Amino acid sequence: MKYSIILGNLGNTCDRFLSSGYKDQPSKETMIQQASEIQGVTGVELVGTWDITPQNADEIGALLQKYGLVTASVLPDHFSQKRWGRGAFTSLDPAIRAQALEETIIAAELARKLGCGLVNLWPGQDGYDYPLQADFVQARTWIVDAIRTAAKAFPDIKFTLEYKPKEPRTHSYMARAADTLLLAQEVGLPNVGVTIDTGHSLVAGENMAEAAALLTKSGNKLFHMHFNDNYRFWDDDMIVGSVHFVEFVELLYWLKKLNYSGWYSMDQYPYREDAQGALRGSVEFLQGIDAMLTPKGMEEIRGVIAEGDAVKSAAWIRSKMFPLR
Amino acid sequence: MKYSIILGNLGNTCDRFLSSGYKDQPSKETMIQQASEIQGVTGVELVGTWDITPQNADEIGALLQKYGLVTASVLPDHFSQKRWGRGAFTSLDPAIRAQALEETIIAAELARKLGCGLVNLWPGQDGYDYPLQADFVQARTWIVDAIRTAAKAFPDIKFTLEYKPKEPRTHSYMARAADTLLLAQEVGLPNVGVTIDTGHSLVAGENMAEAAALLTKSGNKLFHMHFNDNYRFWDDDMIVGSVHFVEFVELLYWLKKLNYSGWYSMDQYPYREDAQGALRGSVEFLQGIDAMLTPKGMEEIRGVIAEGDAVKSAAWIRSKMFPLR
Amino acid sequence: MKYSIILGNLGNTCDRFLSSGYKDQPSKETMIQQASEIQGVTGVELVGTWDITPQNADEIGALLQKYGLVTASVLPDHFSQKRWGRGAFTSLDPAIRAQALEETIIAAELARKLGCGLVNLWPGQDGYDYPLQADFVQARTWIVDAIRTAAKAFPDIKFTLEYKPKEPRTHSYMARAADTLLLAQEVGLPNVGVTIDTGHSLVAGENMAEAAALLTKSGNKLFHMHFNDNYRFWDDDMIVGSVHFVEFVELLYWLKKLNYSGWYSMDQYPYREDAQGALRGSVEFLQGIDAMLTPKGMEEIRGVIAEGDAVKSAAWIRSKMFPLR
Amino acid sequence: MKYSIILGNLGNTCDRFLSSGYKDQPSKETMIQQASEIQGVTGVELVGTWDITPQNADEIGALLQKYGLVTASVLPDHFSQKRWGRGAFTSLDPAIRAQALEETIIAAELARKLGCGLVNLWPGQDGYDYPLQADFVQARTWIVDAIRTAAKAFPDIKFTLEYKPKEPRTHSYMARAADTLLLAQEVGLPNVGVTIDTGHSLVAGENMAEAAALLTKSGNKLFHMHFNDNYRFWDDDMIVGSVHFVEFVELLYWLKKLNYSGWYSMDQYPYREDAQGALRGSVEFLQGIDAMLTPKGMEEIRGVIAEGDAVKSAAWIRSKMFPLR
Repeated sequence: MKYSIILGNLGNTCDRFLSSGYKDQPSKETMIQQASEIQGVTGVELVGTWDITPQNADEIGALLQKYGLVTASVLPDHFSQKRWGRGAFTSLDPAIRAQALEETIIAAELARKLGCGLVNLWPGQDGYDYPLQADFVQARTWIVDAIRTAAKAFPDIKFTLEYKPKEPRTHSYMARAADTLLLAQEVGLPNVGVTIDTGHSLVAGENMAEAAALLTKSGNKLFHMHFNDNYRFWDDDMIVGSVHFVEFVELLYWLKKLNYSGWYSMDQYPYREDAQGALRGSVEFLQGIDAMLTPKGMEEIRGVIAEGDAVKSAAWIRSKMFPLR
Repeated sequence: MKYSIILGNLGNTCDRFLSSGYKDQPSKETMIQQASEIQGVTGVELVGTWDITPQNADEIGALLQKYGLVTASVLPDHFSQKRWGRGAFTSLDPAIRAQALEETIIAAELARKLGCGLVNLWPGQDGYDYPLQADFVQARTWIVDAIRTAAKAFPDIKFTLEYKPKEPRTHSYMARAADTLLLAQEVGLPNVGVTIDTGHSLVAGENMAEAAALLTKSGNKLFHMHFNDNYRFWDDDMIVGSVHFVEFVELLYWLKKLNYSGWYSMDQYPYREDAQGALRGSVEFLQGIDAMLTPKGMEEIRGVIAEGDAVKSAAWIRSKMFPLR
Repeated sequence: MKYSIILGNLGNTCDRFLSSGYKDQPSKETMIQQASEIQGVTGVELVGTWDITPQNADEIGALLQKYGLVTASVLPDHFSQKRWGRGAFTSLDPAIRAQALEETIIAAELARKLGCGLVNLWPGQDGYDYPLQADFVQARTWIVDAIRTAAKAFPDIKFTLEYKPKEPRTHSYMARAADTLLLAQEVGLPNVGVTIDTGHSLVAGENMAEAAALLTKSGNKLFHMHFNDNYRFWDDDMIVGSVHFVEFVELLYWLKKLNYSGWYSMDQYPYREDAQGALRGSVEFLQGIDAMLTPKGMEEIRGVIAEGDAVKSAAWIRSKMFPLR
Repeated sequence: MKYSIILGNLGNTCDRFLSSGYKDQPSKETMIQQASEIQGVTGVELVGTWDITPQNADEIGALLQKYGLVTASVLPDHFSQKRWGRGAFTSLDPAIRAQALEETIIAAELARKLGCGLVNLWPGQDGYDYPLQADFVQARTWIVDAIRTAAKAFPDIKFTLEYKPKEPRTHSYMARAADTLLLAQEVGLPNVGVTIDTGHSLVAGENMAEAAALLTKSGNKLFHMHFNDNYRFWDDDMIVGSVHFVEFVELLYWLKKLNYSGWYSMDQYPYREDAQGALRGSVEFLQGIDAMLTPKGMEEIRGVIAEGDAVKSAAWIRSKMFPLR
């Protein structure tokens, strides 16, 4: 299992009530160093304009090398600038739509330059807020067309679409695993797939493991994984395992069984917490589950699933929760 | 707009605490007569074993004719018998799976006999309840195979898959519009599509109109509509319009714009209410919206959607809520 | 910790789609014997009319004695009979309201007879379904008056009010911990308190431990605990610990710290599962947590709570999840 | 009905992804003028430090007078400064707790100075995020003590507690109507009550009208109303009536019936919308309902509620939705 983190998770984080953020912003080098200090982490994800630009790419690349990290993905910024406020790929303004594509292409070029094969697209502003406000058909067409253009131009780069049911819009166009898979299929290129963010999947009401199975079995379209935890109602971006346990065991079992070979990447918002500690905690949690998934552990889980008997499933997980009794 | 109702909605309805049901069960003829008395209703949906069997098909057909109704669909009973308790199409027992297919074929034969072109599949027991209990990949394969077998055998009948995120299982395999569309696509036959039940869609966190647009634009796969209302958290099966208004206006606008030509069918559980009154209320609500969707009304809505301006969208709907001010 | 179960959990369970229930109904003696076989269980809760009536009270009492069990509580049946369909304590029909009180008094007499000091009231039909349907003020008054009458008549019996936000009504009058506490306070008698059902609390969006703290600190009003698990959206009545873990640790820590001395009672609906196994699993889960709550464990938790540092809280729970690493 | 708005709603609004905000910030005078231009609005609510400080109080007072507005309430800022990041009244740091009280007292002094009798407390940072992180008992004690101190010092000012189940913390201490009422009761002073924010109430799973009835009947503790709309899952702060209609009719009926005499104040976050238009829309929606609540309208609603028959309730609301049919 390859672990990575989104670099900005180590920085300052704000919300709509405290726009200054709850902390101070460390330097890029400090964040990169902190990432490298988390045992098991070998990659970072970089957000365009926040972390990486054509101007600073060499410098960031050198810093990553210095600290022994690789770039896991580049995420074009389609969400944190005023120009995207009413949509990026789906803005009613064709100039904005062109800029959204351009930002994607810049991200792909940066990825190539950094020796990274993955561009993660989360166009958070592409959605709508109110009833009677959206032309769903037109919006989908615009998204598909833009992604196809970018993915055709960079056949060596994988473009992975990260869905989320809501926030910052009350409704996102790429909302759930299956509708985003349909969109990827409509693009019709082998280098376009889907990212599961565990928190987004929980908010979508999905079973995370089932989403992973669906994406994998439909043409091997699970390209990337983001990890965090929440209370199922909102994308709280918490430490993994701080709320849920059993379902992460199920997810990691299925990822292994499905031969998922991508990154296990942390994507959190430790608003008030020590960021490095919060990210380290998540990695340790996943490592803890991974240690259960020995050949024997995998076989045990395969066995309880094959029986489909909830009493036995619950007994198995209890034997892991309370091993010493 | 063609209105129909699920015949059983006029009967007794129970829940897990009051298994006798809240009312008394009327005769089949009484229910059929009551259906015919609701102005606008021209069709009924019949549930296998509850309403219609090979044994009583002629009798029911005659009653429908007597009261001037047609059969809108036949729904095989894959949910209300003990044998389906751990799944119908996805039971671990191959004998049960075979029976689930057989029940589907009987429904198709009944539909044919009644001059009805639609079989609505809601395999409510096909899902799972607990983590570490389900083999998602195997289950999907079984569902696809069974539906393909039935649909191939009855190319003159449309098979429409009704999704629902949960209940009676905590997770259904056919859970949301997009994953059910993927399943229909995997079957690969033109006579397999998807039913939107408005309550199921609300519980799934979908925007109902967006689901309709997605299904229609992906190969014209919106085959059928079930109507009811709820509080978004559970399939309360209430009178349409008793809780929500604006989103039903949006849905009916899109159905008209997308040239949906199927039934507008009521699917409710009026546990404690006068059933005929509850169904009539739903039809009247939809008729009320339909009356807004004149060419002028359609053009107005098209206009506010094209602008994407929530202030104007809300103003338009207010002008309908308070027309006399 | 004293463990009990609701006897009916060992019987047949149905839902609105499968009114016959998923299983067969065992005899009373079989259920009582099965309860006694679950290690740690020393009490059962008995539902009026289902399990216990004035007619069979001696027989049931003898059976309990034979199997070494005591009666943990009696629950009057205010939910499973047609007459309660539109409310028990809050029916618009004064005759029904009188019967609801009478049923409560019979339960208190049965409790006394069985040497049990607790009557658990869950008036599930007391609520409403639709907007513009309920007179909230009148309903609360009726509930308070009836409970006061019963509690005055039986000062030796504790009456504990079990809240639940919804089901079978879309809205219950006793919906959440705090509004039910207010109702108990309005009654104004020391023998009226509140039951937390963990699943109801999760559906209410509460933190279960916080609800326990609130009820205890407001006049020691936490009288009883029902345990089960769910996915937070609906009262799925699953095996405890099958979905959640951390929050049950927090709850049991607080119950111990707050000196809760009542029953830890299982209240589940193992629709499709071996009931005895499902209940045994829940008890074993709670026993597993209890074993963590040694003086050392209590002190550790007290310490992480005192710091209020989520990184440390999550690290502590990880040390329990993965003790061998 | 007296209408007001929170002044800052007319300004720039940001979220965690777009910290610069979606718009530009207008001047104070522009916002005050815009407020005065919304027909029916006669008051504004002012947030401490954002809108009003001891330094600018005279200037703001003069501007309000110039535009014919009064101060509806002052809201101390307990949420948008780094120092409150881990709690204001419930910070583990006693110096911060003292500052939270001080901020409350400043707000009360400003209110007095502006001739306004209401201080609205929304201590958004007072809550917790993770399991095993909070001492619920201690936190409640601190809140009660601080509010008692402030309310005792300003007996001429009403202090109204605004609850919200979550955000910015995953759990707020003042979460729902009933628990906040309990807190107000614990303070034990007549000038401490509760604010219902309609969006917070919807997210809490409450029926807004029932919450209003509960607060009023328990000692006339409904002091203030904030209006906005959402999809029930999150505090989307949308235009009132853009999603829901029926439940706002029920709420306004009950407010009138309960003789609520406070403000009807708009509290929205029109991130991407023309703010004045969004606020005007909300006021117009409430005015539209108010126009229904003639003596005849009130009597009709009283009648359908008295019958408790959902078919009739739904028919009545349909007669308002579609008056011309």
